[in-house]
Amino acid sequence: MEAIVVRRGETSPTVAEVPRPDPEPGEALVRTLRVGVDGTDHEVIAGSHGGFPEGEDHLVLGHEAVGVVVEADGTPFAEGDVVVPTVRRPPVEGTNEYFERGEPDMAPPEACRECGIDGAHGFMSEYFAAPAEYLVPVPEDLAEWGFLVEPVSISEKALEHAAASRSAFEWDPESGLVLGNGSLGLLTLAMLDQRGYDRTYCLGRRDRPDPTIDIIEELGATYVDSRRTPVTEIPEAHESMDFVYEATGYARHAFECIEALAPGGVGALLGVPEPWDFEIDGGRLHKEFVMNNKALVGSVNSNVSHFEAAVETLADFPSWFLDDLVTGVHDLGDYEAAFGDTADGDSASGESAPRHDETTIKTALQFSQI
Amino acid sequence: MEAIVVRRGETSPTVAEVPRPDPEPGEALVRTLRVGVDGTDHEVIAGSHGGFPEGEDHLVLGHEAVGVVVEADGTPFAEGDVVVPTVRRPPVEGTNEYFERGEPDMAPPEACRECGIDGAHGFMSEYFAAPAEYLVPVPEDLAEWGFLVEPVSISEKALEHAAASRSAFEWDPESGLVLGNGSLGLLTLAMLDQRGYDRTYCLGRRDRPDPTIDIIEELGATYVDSRRTPVTEIPEAHESMDFVYEATGYARHAFECIEALAPGGVGALLGVPEPWDFEIDGGRLHKEFVMNNKALVGSVNSNVSHFEAAVETLADFPSWFLDDLVTGVHDLGDYEAAFGDTADGDSASGESAPRHDETTIKTALQFSQI
Repeated sequence: MEAIVVRRGETSPTVAEVPRPDPEPGEALVRTLRVGVDGTDHEVIAGSHGGFPEGEDHLVLGHEAVGVVVEADGTPFAEGDVVVPTVRRPPVEGTNEYFERGEPDMAPPEACRECGIDGAHGFMSEYFAAPAEYLVPVPEDLAEWGFLVEPVSISEKALEHAAASRSAFEWDPESGLVLGNGSLGLLTLAMLDQRGYDRTYCLGRRDRPDPTIDIIEELGATYVDSRRTPVTEIPEAHESMDFVYEATGYARHAFECIEALAPGGVGALLGVPEPWDFEIDGGRLHKEFVMNNKALVGSVNSNVSHFEAAVETLADFPSWFLDDLVTGVHDLGDYEAAFGDTADGDSASGESAPRHDETTIKTALQFSQI
Repeated sequence: MEAIVVRRGETSPTVAEVPRPDPEPGEALVRTLRVGVDGTDHEVIAGSHGGFPEGEDHLVLGHEAVGVVVEADGTPFAEGDVVVPTVRRPPVEGTNEYFERGEPDMAPPEACRECGIDGAHGFMSEYFAAPAEYLVPVPEDLAEWGFLVEPVSISEKALEHAAASRSAFEWDPESGLVLGNGSLGLLTLAMLDQRGYDRTYCLGRRDRPDPTIDIIEELGATYVDSRRTPVTEIPEAHESMDFVYEATGYARHAFECIEALAPGGVGALLGVPEPWDFEIDGGRLHKEFVMNNKALVGSVNSNVSHFEAAVETLADFPSWFLDDLVTGVHDLGDYEAAFGDTADGDSASGESAPRHDETTIKTALQFSQI
């Protein structure tokens, strides 16, 4: 069968012929429908994140998949069920406490593999096999958007952990700021809107006219141009934020967001930057953190409970939002278009190079139809 | 009546004659037994923290008090009840949402006054008056240690908020590190021991023989000398920590502790440093925060629920610990001894001047006996 892979020593994806998986007992065989592309894929392709499966010279890409069960093989699924796979798998040497208690998302990097990212093949192939415990059912009418369940689940977890960190007192967030107007940032902005935040903001560094700014404003949020209003000046220019979601991977934001938070506020950090030395007023930030009871939570990956929540969230998104967010679904013959420069948070709000394609937001590859 | 005050323009406490308080309706009159001295008192005296009551040129010091109700005045208390006062009071202009819902500890600094610290007189006087809602009953047999309820309540809150931040997954902390071997650090170390931490550590910068190191080891904890093992090297020298409690006010610790945390770990920040610019590897810290699901919570002050929890905690401390921790209880005639250099976290572990008196850990002033 055909798959999209990155080979050792190469920095662009190619189509390769790989063996169709032979499901082990307890695994279902899934025919792939669509697989989303995100910034992590670009990092994996560039070699700055993740790694190849042990002893192999290629990695099948893709971790945002939706498919149809074609061989249920004694799993609780039926043939024809639409499913989304979770991303983490136990290390080669076997399972561990994190997987045993259904919280692989809490495993440190060395205690897991990640399909399509680190040490395990992903889902950008005509078929994939997965143990039933790593498959989450999706209603058939959501099949076309099912590749968004994984990215939404990432924010489900981050929002859950952020709220947990504020659960020792009465926390009723009204103002929310998303740093980064990439696809993950926009999905999260829509989630804040859905959860009843009164006032939402999204920070980016793009000029109008721009399709992400259109989406931000259609969601009723305020666009904040970081070139004119840095994160630290947001309280003065707009207001202090009960919640800040960092999806830029721009390390200064992880620390500057402390100043953007309202008393009792929490910042969720999602980005994965490279090492970078810089100066901070650590004394002032430390004091601010303490005197105003602020919190920061780092969050990576997500588990089955977050995927299940994401299915509900996705079903409630307005259809215009999904239509506008997904700017391209490409067949295998046109796979390179899906890997064009996407509006990913890492490039959208950090200090990286200007974007090439200002009309692409979120893309997916289509392997088959339902 | 006599009180210990600091006057505007002065940087040492003095005894002053002040009017005995005339309780308002709903307030009880309390005869003061003992009032503890801590690092915040020294900051207030030095003028680096807090401020005088509006329109006054002196501040009665003291926020760690225990006393006996002498006029119940229609409150739910009875004469003879032993009580501890909470610290925060509404601003002069009136109450607000934080006080209305019993969470004054979550108020930003501008939305509250703090008795003996900022804008309201404290408890270092022969009598004080307080509304019933700001008084917490203490069993009579704990009266002599009652001045420790307030500092213990500070850590009750910090521990509660830290655990809340980890409540979205299964968190069973085994290793705990306290940064700072001042009295608050030692109280917190004893609390971790009480709560079943398997392995505890306490960081300081003092040479043996030293009474705080004796207490640390008597509690079964490991003393970490920061001059030999900086915070960032603790994982290699000992182990990564599920929980870190920062009680040094040394701003580098607020950021370095991210590296000392185990996957899924949380750091509670309590210190209140001055502004201080320094360089960090922000990229590495940010990535570490995210990839290992770490959290930081800032915590200040405490509310009635934390005082109530602190009473229980205090009752369970071994008596040797309290005997060794409280190195001096001084009468009013000897008040200057109570303000001698104490083993407070701020000086014990930061980069400040070496300590003068290595035998003092925690002191209190005695105003009367039960």
